[in-house]
Amino acid sequence: MPAESRDLPLVVTMGDAVGIGPEIIVRAFERGALADAVVAGDPAVLRRAGAAMTALVDEPADLGEVPPGCLPVLAVPGLPDGLASLPWGRVDARAGAAAARCIEQAVHWVQRGEAAAVVTAPVHKEALAAGGVPFPGHTEMLQALAATAGAPPPPVRMMLANDELRVVLVTIHVSLRRALDLLDFDGVLQTLVIAHDACRRFGIAAPRLAVAGLNPHAGEGGLFGDEEIRFIAPAVRSARERGIDAQGPFAPDTVFMRARRGEFDLVVAMTHDHGLIPVKYLGVEHGVNVTLGLPFVRTSPDHGTAFDIAGQGRADPSSLLAALQWARRLATGERARA
Amino acid sequence: MPAESRDLPLVVTMGDAVGIGPEIIVRAFERGALADAVVAGDPAVLRRAGAAMTALVDEPADLGEVPPGCLPVLAVPGLPDGLASLPWGRVDARAGAAAARCIEQAVHWVQRGEAAAVVTAPVHKEALAAGGVPFPGHTEMLQALAATAGAPPPPVRMMLANDELRVVLVTIHVSLRRALDLLDFDGVLQTLVIAHDACRRFGIAAPRLAVAGLNPHAGEGGLFGDEEIRFIAPAVRSARERGIDAQGPFAPDTVFMRARRGEFDLVVAMTHDHGLIPVKYLGVEHGVNVTLGLPFVRTSPDHGTAFDIAGQGRADPSSLLAALQWARRLATGERARA
Repeated sequence: MPAESRDLPLVVTMGDAVGIGPEIIVRAFERGALADAVVAGDPAVLRRAGAAMTALVDEPADLGEVPPGCLPVLAVPGLPDGLASLPWGRVDARAGAAAARCIEQAVHWVQRGEAAAVVTAPVHKEALAAGGVPFPGHTEMLQALAATAGAPPPPVRMMLANDELRVVLVTIHVSLRRALDLLDFDGVLQTLVIAHDACRRFGIAAPRLAVAGLNPHAGEGGLFGDEEIRFIAPAVRSARERGIDAQGPFAPDTVFMRARRGEFDLVVAMTHDHGLIPVKYLGVEHGVNVTLGLPFVRTSPDHGTAFDIAGQGRADPSSLLAALQWARRLATGERARA
Repeated sequence: MPAESRDLPLVVTMGDAVGIGPEIIVRAFERGALADAVVAGDPAVLRRAGAAMTALVDEPADLGEVPPGCLPVLAVPGLPDGLASLPWGRVDARAGAAAARCIEQAVHWVQRGEAAAVVTAPVHKEALAAGGVPFPGHTEMLQALAATAGAPPPPVRMMLANDELRVVLVTIHVSLRRALDLLDFDGVLQTLVIAHDACRRFGIAAPRLAVAGLNPHAGEGGLFGDEEIRFIAPAVRSARERGIDAQGPFAPDTVFMRARRGEFDLVVAMTHDHGLIPVKYLGVEHGVNVTLGLPFVRTSPDHGTAFDIAGQGRADPSSLLAALQWARRLATGERARA
């Protein structure tokens, strides 16, 4: 990440126009949290969500010309008309297509080096599908947009983080039984490489990575499972041979506590819930989702479109505020933990 | 638990004579935490561990006659001679046999209704075996001692608790793959029954039990695994039909946070680490192990004999202090969470 990232704005995508995305963006703006950000979206949608005034800009660099009190909106070519009159909280093809266009535009600017990072407001899987978007969600779409022509998309991993803990997951949305079948040497090693590279990009010069085992007591020397012996420990050794400061596998029930106390910068977890239980234990409001492996920084709040409360002024911007803060920290290489 | 439990003393077992058990007991006594407790053990061992004075009593009721400043020691028939001259921190058959005798004696008094609860200091698995004790640890030994003549031992479950969270585990020390094979309707239902009964004994009139699912998002309606549909939800329904306020299965990554905030009194977890990761996340010092399913209260610190530091005056009594406090609360039916 170049040093001047510190001065580039963040691009925040509007998300699904009939979900809580536009509302939480306006709330964040009202709290001063968008001072160095532009929103890739539809000005009318943002005004419907409560923005007093909006200012349309053609590129991120124009942010400086926006008058105080105006929410800066980055023009997104090809947005469908009438988004601001769609009913709140109903799956709509136009809202899905528009959300995808905003993401494309945000990636366009960050790839050109004119934005520091992408922060995405929530999209709806069904709306994306209805809008003809060939990706089930952000991660897959960003992965495809980040691929260089003709090359396969880069491998990515999900990082969940709060002020105390960073966790990167080897497996995510599969059954626990399927996760046991999917886990292997390559998956663990690739996760360590991605996590290490990401930490370096985030400004941690010598990242200390811990690996949580899969089994109780990390297998107790093979007594309670042999995955640690067969491929987790070998993957850790292989990572160390590449110069990565990886340690473990450690007993899952104490490694997160040790990381929280500062012994490690990040924990690699084998399964969705080994990793997410500790991240969420102290409260989901400050949890942030970061996609690792992309050639740019992308964060998002750790919640969905909340169609049931959209348009009612009840949405809580806390997780978006945390995502903005993390994007800023990560893009500028500032250490997340003092 | 009868009302007069409040006035009965706790019995604390000495644990392995050459581990840190005697030391942490003396430290707890010095801090005033044994005012309503007697130690089932060897006076000479406790003096070697730092007790200034000891007073031998024949039964718990004699506690009132012990002069101030004297550590009350409950006579344990059949202890081997010379325990206090064994080297610290080495597996010894006599220490193993003595530890078992202390446990038998403690159970004797609590079963006779003359002690409120049993708090066990750590034993060493190899020392027990060397001493001819036919049980690998406390849980199995207590289970056998609690069995009525001719009947099978009662099913027991491990509860881990701290000031914020109580968790009961369906499976414990097996590989994750084996846990998936062992989990079934009966195991989940039996855990709910044991947890409910235990909470009632502990003074919670209408225990609110949450069940954590096994798979990410508790299976997302069968998309990520079907154990929730096949037997976890049916076991919850069956428990409810018996009048147990069980809810779930819930997504494992948020149910512990919800319980911590007071929504539930206890969480039933399918696997060792789903349950222990959140209990230990904020620190192991205050974690307490409680054996549920026994006809009496038994707690223990959540650590072992620590042979590497025994006899050096370095052992931390925090977890024993918490175990004493929990035993008192549980035996008297006081709510652990205000």
